[in-house]
Formats: sequence, C-alpha cells, structure tokens
Amino acid sequence: MSINLAPSPLPVTLDDVYAARERLRGIVNATPLQPSRTLAAEVGAAVWLKPESLQRTGSFKLRGAYNKIASLSASERARGVITYSSGNHAQGVACAAGILGVRAVVVMPEDAVAAKVAATRGYGAEVTFAGTDSLQRQARAEELQRQHGYTVIPPFDDPAIIAGQATVGLEIVEELSDVATVLVPCGGSGLLSGVALAVRELRPDVRVIGVEPADAADAQASLAAGAVIEAERIETICDGLRTRRIGDLNFRFLQRYVSAIVAVPDAATLEAMRFLAVRAKLVVEPSGAIAVAALLQGLVPSLAGPVVAVLSGGNVDAGLLAKVLAEG
Amino acid sequence: MSINLAPSPLPVTLDDVYAARERLRGIVNATPLQPSRTLAAEVGAAVWLKPESLQRTGSFKLRGAYNKIASLSASERARGVITYSSGNHAQGVACAAGILGVRAVVVMPEDAVAAKVAATRGYGAEVTFAGTDSLQRQARAEELQRQHGYTVIPPFDDPAIIAGQATVGLEIVEELSDVATVLVPCGGSGLLSGVALAVRELRPDVRVIGVEPADAADAQASLAAGAVIEAERIETICDGLRTRRIGDLNFRFLQRYVSAIVAVPDAATLEAMRFLAVRAKLVVEPSGAIAVAALLQGLVPSLAGPVVAVLSGGNVDAGLLAKVLAEG
Repeated sequence: MSINLAPSPLPVTLDDVYAARERLRGIVNATPLQPSRTLAAEVGAAVWLKPESLQRTGSFKLRGAYNKIASLSASERARGVITYSSGNHAQGVACAAGILGVRAVVVMPEDAVAAKVAATRGYGAEVTFAGTDSLQRQARAEELQRQHGYTVIPPFDDPAIIAGQATVGLEIVEELSDVATVLVPCGGSGLLSGVALAVRELRPDVRVIGVEPADAADAQASLAAGAVIEAERIETICDGLRTRRIGDLNFRFLQRYVSAIVAVPDAATLEAMRFLAVRAKLVVEPSGAIAVAALLQGLVPSLAGPVVAVLSGGNVDAGLLAKVLAEG
Repeated sequence: MSINLAPSPLPVTLDDVYAARERLRGIVNATPLQPSRTLAAEVGAAVWLKPESLQRTGSFKLRGAYNKIASLSASERARGVITYSSGNHAQGVACAAGILGVRAVVVMPEDAVAAKVAATRGYGAEVTFAGTDSLQRQARAEELQRQHGYTVIPPFDDPAIIAGQATVGLEIVEELSDVATVLVPCGGSGLLSGVALAVRELRPDVRVIGVEPADAADAQASLAAGAVIEAERIETICDGLRTRRIGDLNFRFLQRYVSAIVAVPDAATLEAMRFLAVRAKLVVEPSGAIAVAALLQGLVPSLAGPVVAVLSGGNVDAGLLAKVLAEG
C-alpha cells in the first residue's frame, strides 16, 4: 500500500463558482457590504457586515438550492425535488423550485411551526408531514423519492450546493479587495466550505474562520481530530446550526481552506443579535449573529482587519426577537 | 403692480447636489436599494426599499449636516456650530462636526433620553441642557450663538441641507433608471425637498410623493392651501416627523416638484414597522416606516411601479420595537 501525499482534488472549482453566479444572476440579491463603525471601534479593526438576512427568502440558502436545481437534467427537473429540512434550506428549495417551475416536496415534522409551513407553501412547495424527529422525516423523504423519482436536494454535503453558497465569497472579495479575515457561521458547513473555497482560491492570504455554537462544536472537534466527529449535544439557540455532524465533503474543504473554528456560547450570540438590531439596524436570527458574537467577545485569535462577518440569515421568530430586545 | 407668472428660481440646483455628493464621498454610505417581493405582491408593482436606516448615525440626516458644515468658511468652522434638535439631526451634526474637526454644541431638553445624550456625546459634541420645550432650547441656542459666534445648523430650511439630503434622490435614479414613483417621509421636508428636486430634475416623469402622519398633516394642508399652514396637533408616534410647520424654503420645493402628500395613521405606521422587521429584516423607527405604511394601506392614489420607498432612519427605542414585535 502506498501513501499518496498530494491532496486529492476537490469537486468544486472557481469555475464552478463563476458558473453558479451566472445561474443566480437576476435570481438572488447581491447583498450589500455594510460597514459597522461601532464594531470597528469595539475590535480595533475595520469591520464589514455581509447581511444574507437581506437575501431573498431571508437567508443564503437560496443560492445553493437554486444552483443545484438549475443544474439538474431536464428529466430530473420534470420528476421534481424533495427535501426534509424544515428551516431556511426548505424555503430556499421551495423558492428555487418555484422560480424554475419544478415540483418541490418538503417533509416537515408534525409539530412544525405554522409560520414555516405557510412560508414554504407560499413559495409553491407541497408540504407533507412525518413524525417529529429528523430520522422519521428522512425515512419518509426516501420513501417518496423511491415512489416518485424525486431528486433529494441536500442541505450542505453536495458540490452544486457548495458552489452556490460560494458566490457569497466571490461578492466579498470583489467588493472589498483588501479583506484580511472572513468570519462565517458553521453548521453543516455548506456556507463555510463555499466561502472558504472562493475566498482562498482568489486570495490565499485571507484567513477564513468558521464560527459555531459552543454547545454544538463538532466542526472544531473534527478539525482537531482530523476526522468528522459527531456532536454529543446540539442544544443551541442557533436553530440553523443544529447539525450533528458536518458533511464528509465539507470536511475536506474545511481542512484545505479554513484557518480556525471559533466556538461561541449562546448568551453571547443573543447579545450580538441585540447589538445588530439596535446598532446596525439589522434583524438577524441567532445563527446569523454568531460571527458578530465572536467579534464582540474577542474570541478570534490574532484578528487582522479589514474583517467581514457573514450574517447568514434573518428568519427569527418575532417573539424571540422581542424578548431579546426587551431584556437588554 | 405687475404679477410675475414665471416661477422664481430655487436656490438649489442639480449642480449643488452633485457638489454635495462629492463632499459626501467616503463619508456617507451609498445605501443599497433592497427589493421587497413581499411588498410587491401586496401592492401589485415592483417595490424597492431605500434603507437610510443603514446610513451612518442611523438616518439620512448626516448627509445634509455634513454638506452644510463642509460648506462653511474657514472662520465659521473655527468658531464652531450649534443645533437644538435632540433627535437624528443632532446626531448628524455631531458626527459631521466630529469628522471635520469642528466644535459642535447641541442644546437638549433637561429630560432628554440618556441614550440620545450618550450617542451625541459619543460623536464628540458638547451637550448643554435648557428647559423642557423647544422654545427654551432655541432661546438658549441663540444666546450661545451670540456669545460665541457659532453657526446654527438648521434641520431642514436651508439650501445646503436640502442639497445634502438630495443625494438620496441621485442614488435612487442612478441605480433604478425605470423608477416611476418615489415615496418619502415628510416632517420639516428637508429630505422630501431634496429627493424631489434631484429625482424630478433628472426624470420629470417620475412621481414624488410625501408621506406624513395623519396627526401632523401640515404639509398636505399647506399644499392644499397654497401657503405654509401650521399643524394644530403633532401628537404622533413618528418622533422624526413632529414638526409644527414645514420650512418656507421647503414649501417652494414641494410646490414645484411633489405630486401629492399622503397622510398615514400611527397604527398603520406601527404595523409597517413590524412588517419591515419581520419580513424585510430591517429595523426602522416609526418615521422610517411611514412610506411603507402608505403602501400597505393602499393610500397612494394611482400607484405606478417600480416604486421606491425611502426608509428615513432606524433609531428606534429597543423597548418600543420589542413591544411592536410582541403585539403582532
């Protein structure tokens, strides 16, 4: 047995990212880079926010979902797509499929929040219910896939999904040529993989840092161990980052391109959510505030500016936001 | 006595607006135009939001204040500036003066909100207190002006202020060439005057419409009467629009360039504030939500799209926002 020391090629290249951007043109918003002088004063470096909360569907997920569905063959598109996420990815898939005229089925838990069901249906997807845990939903989705020939649209562990999310990284580098550090929320790692790929391939000197909840810090553990580690707990307020393990494909992008993973306690994330609403005038969900929490808490080692913090989404329950604002 | 039917020339031209933009370059954010597909579906026309809530200091006021102070002579700048607004204009003046290294004094009521005092001081201005009503503040400001030779920076009734606010209009027309209707909050009318001037001089076919609180609807009454009318009441939740009368100079811009003024009840404005936070993920103050309230309530007659709604600011008390979110 010989040991191959050359890294195996990754299945997403910059060309794939540029192709994704062409597909997404006119479909997604090129979200603004918003300077935050308040944050800059706090951390002693220029800070820019990349609010994907202002993205269509309220999160970055549309980028990957649209790129994936638009990449399917005509016969796959004719048969339709299915997913079993109940959060931002479901809305991204529903919206993308609606735009492309593709049938979309979303399997949701029987106790799904009515607002999420309504939003997903609002984009034109069919919602079907199965049990209350994710294994039941996955089983139901696979059953429907076999019956109808649907294509499953995975949330993160897929080259076309990663290439779509990577367009966030392209926009950052093209708008802020002297960026030194990019902070990206990390759940399954689709966004982090894509952004890291695009940023580092264009600018190898930039540090890309993942940020995950301290109570679901499997990415940090995985990079330290050199293998994908499953989280023991995923009890975090960051509902977008409650992934038990990052994707195997994503792990390879993290190993190749990511400088560090920072873990943030939920209390700091809620404080950052409040900071963003009160000072930056942006509504973000907990997962979307976590990179700013890392900055406010001084958790990023050897921070070099200019810094970009990606705000991944804004789909927060109005009651939770009200509570966070009232308690400050 | 002969009657002169030719309109007298206004003291702000497009050239003044372009000059203001050059002064503001690198100082203010060119705020994004954000599409709102949800609003578009509600009103049956394409709708874009222009969130000056994302402007430095949290409102458009920095544009006019900076343009005014930067236009002063060296000796005027050496003596310093004074204002007696306690809201967004005070923060705009304080920030602009701080950037330009000009001494700024802000006269505030003795019962001023601590956060506003802190924010104004945070930009480097001196705060002095006088009584609890605006006449006492004005008297104190005039006394200080006589003593120290300060220049008063008025909130709206001034050519350099209007030219600064007009840069919002330039950005709209340059980014959205096919805009048909622009909705602008209306208090003293500095923003409305400037935006209307810039938009109509560049695109005479566009309708520019002012939006004011139904309980402080003096601009509507003034245009109807053909003379500046003082509001009987100014009891509105829109603290940025509690102006008893629009400026005499501003009135001439409204007569020349504004197609209509729409009056909106406070309840609708609070509903729009909630809509913007929950659906558009933007934190705006009540004054900043009023143009969207006019759209949501169907109050704009013969609405033609594409529509731009200017969100004038985001400096809302966290407790009020929490209350609005919790009650929805």
